[in-house]
Amino acid sequence: MSQAISLKETAELLLASDNFVIICHASPDGDTLGGAFALCGALQKLQKRAKVRVPEEVSERFNYLKSGIEEQEFSEEFIITVDVADAALLGSLQDKYPVPDLCIDHHVSNTGYTKNLLLDSEAAAACEIVFELIKLLGSGIISSEIASCLYTGISTDTGCFRFSNTTAASHRITAELMEYGFDCAGLNYLLFEMRTKQRIELEKKALESAEFYFSGRCAMITLTGEMLKAADDEDINAISSMPRQIDGVEVGVTFKQKEEGVWKVSIRTKNYMNAQVICAKFGGGGHQRAAGCRITGDMQDCKTKILTEIERHI
Amino acid sequence: MSQAISLKETAELLLASDNFVIICHASPDGDTLGGAFALCGALQKLQKRAKVRVPEEVSERFNYLKSGIEEQEFSEEFIITVDVADAALLGSLQDKYPVPDLCIDHHVSNTGYTKNLLLDSEAAAACEIVFELIKLLGSGIISSEIASCLYTGISTDTGCFRFSNTTAASHRITAELMEYGFDCAGLNYLLFEMRTKQRIELEKKALESAEFYFSGRCAMITLTGEMLKAADDEDINAISSMPRQIDGVEVGVTFKQKEEGVWKVSIRTKNYMNAQVICAKFGGGGHQRAAGCRITGDMQDCKTKILTEIERHI
Repeated sequence: MSQAISLKETAELLLASDNFVIICHASPDGDTLGGAFALCGALQKLQKRAKVRVPEEVSERFNYLKSGIEEQEFSEEFIITVDVADAALLGSLQDKYPVPDLCIDHHVSNTGYTKNLLLDSEAAAACEIVFELIKLLGSGIISSEIASCLYTGISTDTGCFRFSNTTAASHRITAELMEYGFDCAGLNYLLFEMRTKQRIELEKKALESAEFYFSGRCAMITLTGEMLKAADDEDINAISSMPRQIDGVEVGVTFKQKEEGVWKVSIRTKNYMNAQVICAKFGGGGHQRAAGCRITGDMQDCKTKILTEIERHI
Repeated sequence: MSQAISLKETAELLLASDNFVIICHASPDGDTLGGAFALCGALQKLQKRAKVRVPEEVSERFNYLKSGIEEQEFSEEFIITVDVADAALLGSLQDKYPVPDLCIDHHVSNTGYTKNLLLDSEAAAACEIVFELIKLLGSGIISSEIASCLYTGISTDTGCFRFSNTTAASHRITAELMEYGFDCAGLNYLLFEMRTKQRIELEKKALESAEFYFSGRCAMITLTGEMLKAADDEDINAISSMPRQIDGVEVGVTFKQKEEGVWKVSIRTKNYMNAQVICAKFGGGGHQRAAGCRITGDMQDCKTKILTEIERHI
């Protein structure tokens, strides 16, 4: 089990160390990347050596996060993970870094796989914690680049301040970050508005496939393997949230064809239904409002099975 | 011309008066409504009499704004407009209230049609100004209902903190508002996520109609009168912003059929093109990034005319 440490203890630990490797989780998102690059920039500003490692390829959309970072060669000493709840999420880097020195995280489910753990499960994003930490490392460290990294994490993890994890602190920190003068509106376009032509095409097909059940309380969309060919994870994820957005819909279901006769099903619920309970019936899992499972067989049979289970709870 | 007054002077004026009518602008949005109902609630809390008047029907989506308000009968004395830049925007109420006592606004274009004017053109929303004003009226006035009204104005006018008008102050005020404990995530769903089935249907048809020009730098969608029958203003407005959201698109054009041979054209640009200049060519107007015009004739001819003008600037 990790040793739980405070912000102040973490700052002291970092100030006393050097030659940092900061690791992101697999399927890297704005929070793990933004937090890692912000911390890397801050440590470099303190004349320490630091680099970021990511177990998977990073979407080009996030290239700007590296803009304040200097590439440095050094012998690695102090290993930090950011926003990584479980060692398994280190993916291809897990073997090389079995017990990192420190994890900075906001997941209540953190498994305590590092020597030290700075955890704040009230924080909407790991970047909120990294922000408070950098402030303790010294004054004058935060640049507009670091601010834009931290903003990236907070805004993406809160769905641009829309999700229920958004707190007064999220807004208060964002206000402070904006004072550093990065191009916030440009970043918002990049992160939340821009849609590729492939995405538009997929949305069109998804909407065409929409079916409604139980007097409109259940909406289902179907994405065949053919439709999914050109789509990336981010697009598919965004599209899976579409059925639930429809007025009157309590449960949104997305059928995604993985291969002939194999379907990945995403279930998103709105107010009262437990998506996890439904998916657990088919060996899947997740959270109360968002869960998933795999199901095999003829499409119509699979849909009937899922709908029968939904009917028991709706 | 209006007398420009400060926040403090405005607070003194309100504290010295009673029997308020607070008026919203026509085509009422979250900011004019949120600001008016917040101020009404605050004045009632001060044991004054106040009511809100709106020149047009209010979308049911905004019903919750009235939840803290008591219906009161009284003889009207002090007339306030909120977020109303021009007397013409009072619509059907303009004749009854030719020179209101006070306008609270954030539009730099305010025409000064009221006796007194509290203007802050740096504010992202009129609700930011109303918030500061209510704080000066006394302590303990802001309830969770008032906070949710003010949040509505700030979040809608900033596109949920995405638009370039969002400032550090917008976030700082929002942080303060969240401390009053309203259901922020529920409100965000209502304001930004919920889409009616009609809207989904219209989006689908809009996407099907998409055409691309100038190597993908111009995207055009066409909404026929038939498609627009069941749609409301809010939906059409949201859909007009879709073409510009596509990756690589600098100018998004939406053709909306008003009647046979009559088209309303919305032009939204991203980075460098001036939408207003293009629309001015056809007798229209607007802003640099969003403008509109009316054009008559055969659909294909109309499109060619617009595209020819766009080609000169793209």
